[in-house]
Amino acid sequence: MSATLHRIDAGPAPSLDPMLRLVAHDMNAVNSVILDRMQSDVPLIPELAGHLIAGGGKRMRPMLTLACARLLDYPGTRHHKLAAAVEFIHTATLLHDDVVDGSDLRRGRRTANIIWGNPASVLVGDFLFSRSFELMVEDGSLKVLRILSNASAVIAEGEVNQLTAQRQVETSEERYLDIIGAKTAALFAAACRIAAVVAERPEAEELALDAYGRNLGIAFQLVDDAIDYSSDEATMGKGVGDDFRDGKVTLPVILAHARGSAADKAFWRDAMMGHRVSDADLAHATGLLRATGAIDDTIERARHYGQRAIDALGGFGASAAKAALTEAVGFAVARAY
Amino acid sequence: MSATLHRIDAGPAPSLDPMLRLVAHDMNAVNSVILDRMQSDVPLIPELAGHLIAGGGKRMRPMLTLACARLLDYPGTRHHKLAAAVEFIHTATLLHDDVVDGSDLRRGRRTANIIWGNPASVLVGDFLFSRSFELMVEDGSLKVLRILSNASAVIAEGEVNQLTAQRQVETSEERYLDIIGAKTAALFAAACRIAAVVAERPEAEELALDAYGRNLGIAFQLVDDAIDYSSDEATMGKGVGDDFRDGKVTLPVILAHARGSAADKAFWRDAMMGHRVSDADLAHATGLLRATGAIDDTIERARHYGQRAIDALGGFGASAAKAALTEAVGFAVARAY
Repeated sequence: MSATLHRIDAGPAPSLDPMLRLVAHDMNAVNSVILDRMQSDVPLIPELAGHLIAGGGKRMRPMLTLACARLLDYPGTRHHKLAAAVEFIHTATLLHDDVVDGSDLRRGRRTANIIWGNPASVLVGDFLFSRSFELMVEDGSLKVLRILSNASAVIAEGEVNQLTAQRQVETSEERYLDIIGAKTAALFAAACRIAAVVAERPEAEELALDAYGRNLGIAFQLVDDAIDYSSDEATMGKGVGDDFRDGKVTLPVILAHARGSAADKAFWRDAMMGHRVSDADLAHATGLLRATGAIDDTIERARHYGQRAIDALGGFGASAAKAALTEAVGFAVARAY
Repeated sequence: MSATLHRIDAGPAPSLDPMLRLVAHDMNAVNSVILDRMQSDVPLIPELAGHLIAGGGKRMRPMLTLACARLLDYPGTRHHKLAAAVEFIHTATLLHDDVVDGSDLRRGRRTANIIWGNPASVLVGDFLFSRSFELMVEDGSLKVLRILSNASAVIAEGEVNQLTAQRQVETSEERYLDIIGAKTAALFAAACRIAAVVAERPEAEELALDAYGRNLGIAFQLVDDAIDYSSDEATMGKGVGDDFRDGKVTLPVILAHARGSAADKAFWRDAMMGHRVSDADLAHATGLLRATGAIDDTIERARHYGQRAIDALGGFGASAAKAALTEAVGFAVARAY
C-alpha cells in the first residue's frame, strides 16, 4: 500500500491485511489480556465468553485502537489493556443483542443464547461489561474512563432507540443515522480516540481520530445493513434476511419504501410488521431493493462516510499506519461486493 | 435510640426510621441526581427506569452510603452522586434479574419485563449500568471506581454462579454463602466503603465499613430467602414461593434437605427439578421447613451475620449515625417476623 492512496476506489481490491500485519504483535498481547481477564472461578463464564471470543470475530475495534496508537508512534503498552476493554464492551453488547433479537447464528456458529440460554448470556454480558471497567480502572486514566463510559451509555441508548424504531416503516433516514451513530459508531470512535489519549496528543488529534472512527463505524454499519439483503449465509455467518424478518428498518428499506409505489409501500409496511416472512417475500423485497437502487445507494452513502473517515486523517503525515487505516476504510465499504 | 444498643435483640422492635430521618435531607439530593440522570432523548428509557425507580424500593444501598458518610462526619456532597451510582447499579441488576428469573411481580407492581418485554429490560439495564459509571467518572476518584467496578464484576459472577447452582439440591451451605456474598453483599459492602473513601479516612475505617456492609448484606439476603417461604404476597410485593418454583436452592432448602429423611430428600430433589410446583407441594415444603427448623435456623444464621455487622462498627464512637446503622441491622433481621 502506498500512503498516496486517498480515495476508496483507487488501486486494487482493498484489504485488511496491512492493518492486520501492522498490529499483529500488539494483537497477541491484547489477546493474552482478553484470555486472562475473561477467566473466573465460575466455569460457565469463560466457557460462554470463550465461545464468542474464540469464534473468529475480526477484532475490528481493538485493532483500530492499536493501529491508531501506531499512527501516533505511541511507544508504550497501556493500549493493550484498553483495547481488551473495548473488545469486552463489544462482546457484552453482542451477547445482549443476540438475546434481544433472538438470534441463533453469529459468525457461522450457534449463538450463546441458543446453547446456554438467555439468562446466562445476559449475566455473562454483564460480567464482561464490568470486567471492561476494571481494566480501564487499572489503566487509571479518567479521560479514557470518561470516553468509554460515555460510549457505553450511548450504545445502550442507541440499542433502545433501535428497539423502539423496530417495525416502524416510517423511520426517517435521520433517525436511522442517529441509531447507528450510537449503537455502532460510538464505540469505533472511542476505540480510535483513546489511542490519542494514551499517546498524550493534543485534543485536535483526539478529535480527528474520533471522527475517523465514527465515520468508519457508520460506513461499516451501512454496509452490514446492505449485506443483510445481498449476501448469503456462508459469507455472512448469520441468517440471510434476519433484519427483514425481525422488522428492522435499515437504510435499504427506508430508501425502497420512500421511492416505492403505493403497493410497494404497503408491502414494506406489512413486511416490517412481520406479515411477510416467507422466502418468496424476501425475494420480492430484494427485487424491490434492486429496482429502486436502494442497495447501491446505501453503499453510496457508506462510501460518503468512508471518504469522510479518510479525510479526517488528513492532518497526519504519510506512514504505513495511515495507509493501513485508509485501506481499512476501503475494505469496510468493499465488503458489499 | 440510644448508642448503647449493641445487641440485635435488645429494646423495642427495631426500625429503619432512625436511618431514614438521619439521611432524609441527603436522600432528597440523591433522588434529584437519580431522576436527572435517568433521563434520555429515547423516551422508553426514563419511562421504563422510572417505573422501577419510582416503584417504592427502600433505597437501602444509597441510604447506607449516606448513613456511613454521616457516621464519619463527612461534610461534603460528593457522596450524593456516588449513592445514585450505587442505586443505578442495583436497579440495572434488578432489571436483568427479573429477565433471568422471568419474574412478573416486584415491589407489588408488574415487572418491567412483563410490561415492556425482555429486550427493553436488558437494554435499559445496560444503560443504567453505563450511566452509573459515568457518574463515578464525574466524581473522579479512581479508588471509588475500583471498588464499584470490582463489586459489579463480583455481582455478575455471583449471579452466574447462582444460575449454575439452580436446581442443584446438593448445593452446599458454603457455596450458597459464596453466591449471596457476591450477588448481594458485595454491593452493600461497596456502598458503605465508598463513604470512607470520599471522607478520606484511613484504610482501617474503610475495611470496617466494608465488613459492616458485607455482613449486613448477607443477613439481609438470608432473611429474604427465609421470607420467600414464610410471608404472603402482600407483604413481600412479589410472588410467594417464587424461589421454590424456580428451583433456587437457598439456605432454608439446603438445611431442610440435609436434615430430612430419605423421602424428604427425594421430595426436595424433585421440587428443585421443577416437578413439585403446586400449592399443595409448596405447603408440604413449608411444613418440612418448619419441622426441621430450617427457617428458624436461617434466621439464626442471619442474626449471626447481623451481630458481626454491628461489631464491625466497634471502633466508631457513639453517635446518632452509629445508633441508626445498628438499628438498621436489627430491622433487617426482624423483617422475618
